[in-house]
Amino acid sequence: MSYKAPLRDMRFVLHELFDVSAHCALLGNGLDRELIDGVLEEGARYASEVVAPLNRNGDEEGVRLENGEVTTPRGFRDAYRQYCDNGWASMTGPVEQGGQGFPQMVACNFHEMLMGANLSFRVYSGLTEGAVLALRKHGSAALKQAYLDKLVSGRWAGTMCLTEPQAGTDLALLRSRAEPLADGSFKVSGSKIFISGGEQDLSENIVHLVLARLPDAPAGVKGISLFLVPKFIANADGTPGARNALSCGAIEHKMGIRGAATCVMNFDGATGWLIGEANQGLACMFTMMNDARFQVGLQGLGVGEQAFQGALAYARERLQSRALSGPAMPDRPADAIIHHPDVRRMLLTQKTLVEGGRMLAAYCARQLDLEHGHPDATQRKAAGKRAALLIPIVKAFLTDMGQEVASLGVQVYGGHGFIREWGMEQLMRDSRITQLYEGTNGIQALDLIRRKLMGDGGAELAALQDEFAALADAQAGRPELAELAGAVLARLQEWRTLSATLLDRVRENPEEIGAASVDFLQYSAYVLLAGFWLQAAARAQDALEAGRSEADFYRAKLHSARFYLRRVLPRASGHREALLGGADCLMALPEAHFAF
Amino acid sequence: MSYKAPLRDMRFVLHELFDVSAHCALLGNGLDRELIDGVLEEGARYASEVVAPLNRNGDEEGVRLENGEVTTPRGFRDAYRQYCDNGWASMTGPVEQGGQGFPQMVACNFHEMLMGANLSFRVYSGLTEGAVLALRKHGSAALKQAYLDKLVSGRWAGTMCLTEPQAGTDLALLRSRAEPLADGSFKVSGSKIFISGGEQDLSENIVHLVLARLPDAPAGVKGISLFLVPKFIANADGTPGARNALSCGAIEHKMGIRGAATCVMNFDGATGWLIGEANQGLACMFTMMNDARFQVGLQGLGVGEQAFQGALAYARERLQSRALSGPAMPDRPADAIIHHPDVRRMLLTQKTLVEGGRMLAAYCARQLDLEHGHPDATQRKAAGKRAALLIPIVKAFLTDMGQEVASLGVQVYGGHGFIREWGMEQLMRDSRITQLYEGTNGIQALDLIRRKLMGDGGAELAALQDEFAALADAQAGRPELAELAGAVLARLQEWRTLSATLLDRVRENPEEIGAASVDFLQYSAYVLLAGFWLQAAARAQDALEAGRSEADFYRAKLHSARFYLRRVLPRASGHREALLGGADCLMALPEAHFAF
Repeated sequence: MSYKAPLRDMRFVLHELFDVSAHCALLGNGLDRELIDGVLEEGARYASEVVAPLNRNGDEEGVRLENGEVTTPRGFRDAYRQYCDNGWASMTGPVEQGGQGFPQMVACNFHEMLMGANLSFRVYSGLTEGAVLALRKHGSAALKQAYLDKLVSGRWAGTMCLTEPQAGTDLALLRSRAEPLADGSFKVSGSKIFISGGEQDLSENIVHLVLARLPDAPAGVKGISLFLVPKFIANADGTPGARNALSCGAIEHKMGIRGAATCVMNFDGATGWLIGEANQGLACMFTMMNDARFQVGLQGLGVGEQAFQGALAYARERLQSRALSGPAMPDRPADAIIHHPDVRRMLLTQKTLVEGGRMLAAYCARQLDLEHGHPDATQRKAAGKRAALLIPIVKAFLTDMGQEVASLGVQVYGGHGFIREWGMEQLMRDSRITQLYEGTNGIQALDLIRRKLMGDGGAELAALQDEFAALADAQAGRPELAELAGAVLARLQEWRTLSATLLDRVRENPEEIGAASVDFLQYSAYVLLAGFWLQAAARAQDALEAGRSEADFYRAKLHSARFYLRRVLPRASGHREALLGGADCLMALPEAHFAF
Repeated sequence: MSYKAPLRDMRFVLHELFDVSAHCALLGNGLDRELIDGVLEEGARYASEVVAPLNRNGDEEGVRLENGEVTTPRGFRDAYRQYCDNGWASMTGPVEQGGQGFPQMVACNFHEMLMGANLSFRVYSGLTEGAVLALRKHGSAALKQAYLDKLVSGRWAGTMCLTEPQAGTDLALLRSRAEPLADGSFKVSGSKIFISGGEQDLSENIVHLVLARLPDAPAGVKGISLFLVPKFIANADGTPGARNALSCGAIEHKMGIRGAATCVMNFDGATGWLIGEANQGLACMFTMMNDARFQVGLQGLGVGEQAFQGALAYARERLQSRALSGPAMPDRPADAIIHHPDVRRMLLTQKTLVEGGRMLAAYCARQLDLEHGHPDATQRKAAGKRAALLIPIVKAFLTDMGQEVASLGVQVYGGHGFIREWGMEQLMRDSRITQLYEGTNGIQALDLIRRKLMGDGGAELAALQDEFAALADAQAGRPELAELAGAVLARLQEWRTLSATLLDRVRENPEEIGAASVDFLQYSAYVLLAGFWLQAAARAQDALEAGRSEADFYRAKLHSARFYLRRVLPRASGHREALLGGADCLMALPEAHFAF
C-alpha cells in the first residue's frame, strides 16, 4: 500500500476554508501561500518516499532490546537523520532556539502525513515538540540553555514519563520519588511503564520529562512535580555527557505500532532537575498534554486517510460481481466493486469522516496558534478556551474515527484485509493504541463534560454553537445548500437543548457525568462535522458559481456533504437517545451481579 | 485470561426461555434436562481446562509449513485427540453414522464455549460438521460409505474449498476444473486460497469439498459442481490410502487466528468424486453454508463472552480514581473502575449484546433443528424459512458484535489492552476474521434483503414481527415490564413501516438494495434483541413473582433489559435514519472523483 499525501484537500482546507494566509499575517510569521504549499509538497515527498516505505517492514521486524539498547527497524535511523537534517524536526520550534516557527495550522498537515505514512516512526518524534513547549514555558534559564535547542533540532528527543503500573488514569497514585541534592539537582527513582521511545537508537540523547514526588510532598495530585532527567547529562559545551542512572528494563509486545519502542523505564537515583514549581508538575505536564492529545488526534486522521486510500485503490481494481442495476464494465468479467452501493457506503463513510476530521483538526490548530500567537491578549485567552473545549473532541473522535475507517478498509478488502502482506490489517492494529494513550477516549469525554462544559456552565460551548449557527444562517438561503443548512441549524438547536439538559442532570447527579460523557462527545463531534461539511459545501458552491477550474473537485465536495448529512449524521440521533437514557440503568446493577 | 463457560446463562436460555426439553421431546432425540446440563458441564470443563490454556501460546507460536506439512501449535494435537475420543466431534452427527444426534440448540452452547476458549483451535473442526451435512444430503451411497463415519467421528476433518484469487464473493469467476475419468471419478485441478485447515497435523485424513467446473459446464454459477477430494483416498477397509495429488502451497500470515492454518491449496489433477448433480455444486454447497454461517455467528458470540469475562475481571480488580459520587472503597487507595459509570456502560454493553446474542443464536438453532427434525413436513418447511431469514442476521450481527465487544474489552483494560500478554488484543485480532469469512457481513446484508425479504415480498419477516408483537402484547399489562413492552411494540411497528418502505424502494431502484442493506440488517437485529430482552425480563419477573431462588440472577436480567432498552436500542434510530437517506447520495459521485 503506497501513501500519497492528500495535498489538494489540505490546500482546500488551508486556503479556501480557513484562509491560512490571513492567519499567518495575523500571527506575523512571514509565511505566504507559495511557501506553505511548497513546504507541504516537500513534506509529502519525504512522507511518501522516505517514511512510508518503512512501514510494513517496521511492523514485521519490530524492535529489539539487547543489553539495555534498543534497535529500531531497518531504515528508521536514516529516515530520522533526514527528519533532523532537512528541518522537519524544527518545523514548529521557536525561532529563537533555531526553530522555524510554523503555526500548527500548517504543521498539522505535515504531521498528519507522517502519521499516515508510518505511525511507529512518528511515535519517536511526536513527544519532542510537547517537551519543547513545557520546557520553554516552565524550565529554568539554565535548563533551557542546556537542552532546548537540541530538542528543537530533533538531535535530542523528548519523552513523557507519567504512567506507573498502579497509576495510569489516576496520577494521584504515583509513587516515583525525587530527593533534593545540595547542588539543586534531584535524585529520581521509580519505575515508569508505557514510555514511547523511552530508549531508541535514533537520537543522540533522550530527555525524559518525569513526574515524581518530593519527600515532603502532599498526597494526591497536588504533590507531584515535574523533572527533566536526561539519558546523557548535557556537558557545558552542549555535547551529551555522563550516562545517567536510568535504563530500559523491558519493551512491550504490542498489538500494533510494533516498530515503536514502548519501554519500561527504571530510574535508579537518576540525576534530574525540577521543571517549574515544586508540586506543580501536573500543571506543567498539561502544557505538553494538550499538544500531545492534539497530535494523537492527528494520528487517527493520518491512519484514516491511508486506510481510505488503500480501500479506494482496491475497490477500483478488484472485479467481483455485477452492479445491481446492470453491468458497469461489460467488457470485463465482473465490475469493479466500487460500483456496488455497499462498498460506496464504506468508502464514502471513510472519505467524509477523514475529510471532515481534517477540517476539525485545522480549526482546532488555528485556535492553538491564536492562543499562543494572537497579538491581543483577550483574543489569546478566547482562543485558548476554544482550543481547550475542542481538544478532547479532536483526540477522542478522530481516533475512534481512525479505527473505524481502518476497519472499514479491512472490510472493503474482504478476506485480503486480514492478511498481513496487504497492509490494511496493520492500520487497524496500529491505530487501536490511539484510543488508549494520552488519556483513554473515555477520559477525554469526562474532561469535555467535567472541565470544559461544567467549568464555565456551558458558555464556551454556546459560543461555538452560535458561531456555527451564524455560518449556517448565512447559507440557508442558497437553494443548493438549503437542505444541508436547514439540517445543521436543526441539529445545533437540538445540541443546545441537549447540553442544557445535560448540565441540569449533572448538577443533580454526578454519576450522569460519566453516564453521558461518551455519547455527548460523539454527538457533539457528529454535529460539528456537519457544520464543517456545510462550510465546505458553501465554498465549493462559491467556486462553481464563480466558474473556477477543478469543477469536479468542488462537485465532489457537494456530493460528499450530502452523503455525510444523509448517511453519517444520523448516528447523532442514536447517541442523543442513548444519553437521554440516563445513569440509573448503569448504576442500578450491583457490582457482584454482573455475572453468575 | 481464563475462560469460564457461562453455564447459568445458557441454562436460562435453554430451559427458562425456550424449554429445550419440550424441543427435544418433539424431535424425539431422548435428551432430557439432566443429560443436557451434564453434557454442557463436561463440555465447559473441556473448553476451559483443555482448550482455553492453549489460546495464548497458539497465537504466539503460530503455524509452521515445512515441506508441505503443517505443524499446529503445541498442545493442539492432544486437545484434538480428546475432542474425538470423548465424543465432542460427533455431538451433532447422525446417529446412524455413529453420531450422537444432539440438536443445534444444545450443541451451539458447546460450540460457543470452544470458540470463546480458543477460536483458532475451533477453526480446525468447525467445517467438518457442515461437510457431514452436505455429504449426507447430496453424496452417493459409495461416498457416504467410505467417508461419512470418519467425518462424524472427527478422525477425518472436512474443509470447504471455494475461494480462488479472482473469485471470492463472486463464484461465477471460478476457474478450477474437473475432468471426468472412465471409472466415474474426476481429475480436479486448480488453486484455492483461504482454506481453513487445508493442511494440518490433527486428523488422520482431510476431506476437501471443492467447487470446480466440468469441461462442458455453462459459464457462471450454473456451471459449478461440487467434488469430494480427499488428502488420502479411502481404502476399502476404511483406512487412509493413496496420497492424492494435492498440496498446501503456502500458509497465510494473518492479523489473528494465528494458531489456525489458512492455506493455499493446489489441486494438480487430484482424484475426486462428484457430490450431487453436475452443475448443481452451489446448491450442494449451500447446505453446508447455512451451517457454516451459523457457526461463524457463534464465533462472534464466543469471543464476545470471553472479552466480557476478561473486562469484568479487570474492572473489578483495577483500582483507579474515585467514583463520581464519592469513594466506593474508602479503605483502598482508589475505587475499582467498575464503580465508574463509563466503565459500566462498556461492561453492560458487552453483557447485553452477548446475552442478547445468545438468545438470538438459540432461537435460530431451534429453527435449524425443526427444519431438519420436526415430524410434520409443513412445520419443517416453515422452520426452514424462518432459519433462512435469521442466518444472515446471526452471522453478521453476532460477528460485528463480537468485534465491538472485544474492542470494548481492550478499552476497559486501558493501555494494558494493547499489550499482547494480557490477551485482550488477541480477541480483537481473532474475531476480526469472522466479519469477513463465509461471506462478508455486507454480503449477508444483501442476502437478507435480496433473497429473504424480496424473495417472498416480506411475508416471513412479517410473520416474525407478528410473533414478537404477540409476545410483547402479552407482557404489556405487567407494570414492571410495561416500559420495555411498550418500547418493543413501538419498534416493531416502526420496523414494519421501514420494511414496507424498503420493499417499495428496491422495486423502483435496485441500487437501494445495497444502499440499505447493512443499515437494515443492523436495525433489524437491534429490534430483535429488544424482543428477546423483553422475553428474558418476563421470565425473570415470573421467577421473582414465584419466589424462586437465585433472585439476584433474575433481578440482574431485569436491570440488563432496562439498560439494553435505554442505552443500546437507540442505535436502531441511527440506522433507520441512515437507511432512509437512500441510494442517491451513494451513487451520485462518479467513480473517478472519489479522490483528487
